[in-house]
Amino acid sequence: MEKEGLPALGWAARDTSGHLSPYSFSRRVQEDDDVTIKVLFCGICHTDLHIAKNDWGNTLYPVVPGHEITTKRLVGVVTDIGRGVDGFKIGETVGVGYFVGSCRTRISCSKGYENYCAKLEITSNGVGRDGENTRGGFSDVLVVNQDYVLRVPDTLPMDGAAPLLCAGVTMYTPMMRHGLNAPGKHLGVVGLGGLGHLAIKFGKAFGMTVTVISSSPAKRQEALDRLGADAFLLSSDPEEMKAAAGTMDGIIDTVSAGHPIVPLLDVLSPMGQIVLVGGPSEPLELPAYAIVPGGKGIVGNLVGSIRDCQAMLDFAGKHGITADVEVVKMDYVNTAVQRLQRNDVRYRFVIDVAGSQPPRRLSRV
Amino acid sequence: MEKEGLPALGWAARDTSGHLSPYSFSRRVQEDDDVTIKVLFCGICHTDLHIAKNDWGNTLYPVVPGHEITTKRLVGVVTDIGRGVDGFKIGETVGVGYFVGSCRTRISCSKGYENYCAKLEITSNGVGRDGENTRGGFSDVLVVNQDYVLRVPDTLPMDGAAPLLCAGVTMYTPMMRHGLNAPGKHLGVVGLGGLGHLAIKFGKAFGMTVTVISSSPAKRQEALDRLGADAFLLSSDPEEMKAAAGTMDGIIDTVSAGHPIVPLLDVLSPMGQIVLVGGPSEPLELPAYAIVPGGKGIVGNLVGSIRDCQAMLDFAGKHGITADVEVVKMDYVNTAVQRLQRNDVRYRFVIDVAGSQPPRRLSRV
Repeated sequence: MEKEGLPALGWAARDTSGHLSPYSFSRRVQEDDDVTIKVLFCGICHTDLHIAKNDWGNTLYPVVPGHEITTKRLVGVVTDIGRGVDGFKIGETVGVGYFVGSCRTRISCSKGYENYCAKLEITSNGVGRDGENTRGGFSDVLVVNQDYVLRVPDTLPMDGAAPLLCAGVTMYTPMMRHGLNAPGKHLGVVGLGGLGHLAIKFGKAFGMTVTVISSSPAKRQEALDRLGADAFLLSSDPEEMKAAAGTMDGIIDTVSAGHPIVPLLDVLSPMGQIVLVGGPSEPLELPAYAIVPGGKGIVGNLVGSIRDCQAMLDFAGKHGITADVEVVKMDYVNTAVQRLQRNDVRYRFVIDVAGSQPPRRLSRV
Repeated sequence: MEKEGLPALGWAARDTSGHLSPYSFSRRVQEDDDVTIKVLFCGICHTDLHIAKNDWGNTLYPVVPGHEITTKRLVGVVTDIGRGVDGFKIGETVGVGYFVGSCRTRISCSKGYENYCAKLEITSNGVGRDGENTRGGFSDVLVVNQDYVLRVPDTLPMDGAAPLLCAGVTMYTPMMRHGLNAPGKHLGVVGLGGLGHLAIKFGKAFGMTVTVISSSPAKRQEALDRLGADAFLLSSDPEEMKAAAGTMDGIIDTVSAGHPIVPLLDVLSPMGQIVLVGGPSEPLELPAYAIVPGGKGIVGNLVGSIRDCQAMLDFAGKHGITADVEVVKMDYVNTAVQRLQRNDVRYRFVIDVAGSQPPRRLSRV
């Protein structure tokens, strides 16, 4: 007799309106190398907005967003583990991030950057190992292969830690890759949202000088006083930008709206790179003269590997880094999404998933 | 009494026609840390064309181009050395490349990549330590600070070695910087001219698989049979390009004409980079989706440091790498420039400077 998957209750978008509403579905049958976890907290990432509205033309409706998931050490939270699972015990504190599977064999996986695997199973709006659409953390329960589950340090609050699973690793990984992780280095951060505010925190924890670059003068005080950036550069002020020419070792550019990149390349020192993590819909204009004479460049980044993510969480635990969050209930999600679209949040919404619904009995099937 | 500089005879462009004609001038007075060398061979680089015609709007007329200079071990060729020179003996085999000075103190110089020094004294069309315009290797004699003079391996012919001093180091340096220097790696080379043909030679010497990417089917045989590339990819053939998706560890893009880069990013494997060394006058169009999901990038490169250049020459000596050259006399230079503009050379013109003019007595002033 074929096993049945665990019943799950999530919030799904059904069409390009992106409106989310309750949705019942089944999780896949837990296999020997899986763990089943109850979702306690789940962050809301810009990607969730894009997926809900099919902005990238690849949404598989009904779609359950969410890929910044944490849960905490309580018996019954990691509710079940497969027979082959050796890394986790029932009740261990865990997180799940942007993806829950990869091919494990081809070049990216074999080299340890499975986040670039062509067969990446993303946590939401992907295709899972059972061939069904994956559904994310805007739901009460997840079944996840043990190798894609992260350990979240006990010292971090679970709500503030949730955004680390995507936004955090998206900032930490390129800093490590591009040497932007050492005292004496000067990091520029473009954009002050869920990603950018974590870039400041990681940058400061690495001992770097961190300058926020923004077109909005209103962000100056916020960057300096609230978030502890060392300096603020108003990108719309040519004099300020000119004075900063050649001073930064690297820039993390988190802005998704179209924007000129030549002024950013100008403030890089020779051989510096801009790390692009946002997704402007219009192509960037990149003149050769802006990168050839200084050996500069622009490079993309998509989250990080499981190893990167675990290293980031360990580092965050050591330095007490979490996101500044506004915790909301599940039924506030549509309002939260609207506010996120107009950047009306400091700096990340996190849904108190388990606190939003009546408790359900989670039974092994 | 003020010393007088050494009389020199070169070929200079006087205006934006770029036409070159004989030009008498004085070299700066040799200082204690200088060497004076007789120019035997000098390559013609695309940069020389741009400078002669003021394509970049920064030409200091009259301009004497040339920055791929070699001379050979003959008494009287390194004609004189300053009292403070300890690295060179009279008659030693030397070369001079794209630059002849830098600030030596600020960040790029102190980190060993003085090719990105903001005060770089380029060999031609720059400003020298005496405050006068620098004049390049299309002339009979040079006075150069010893620290910017390279040792050319004896085993290399001086004519074929000359283009290594700019084109060679421009290919070698980014290969070293971006890990494109190991067996098992797959290098793409875009453009098959003075730069591209050397990229193939260095790539093969590093033990890599080298694929030439070109929009011209006529280049296929040339790339494979004459230059020993492993494969040829016709960029205008979508099927060929699709089949090659995700296969290359890095690409050296030498093309100066405007061209789409998304198809090139597509053939890179995750985290691969395009190294841009040409100077298309129109900005490249870089969509975020082409670099973010694969962690890919595009990075510029301008020649290499003196240390890079020396390492390149030593490596070239060990592997017998020189440019394929057509050696011409000085009075052929205008024709050579015209032919270079239409890519009618395989693959680099080198001027036999010393063999082109009546011998002159070089005396210490």
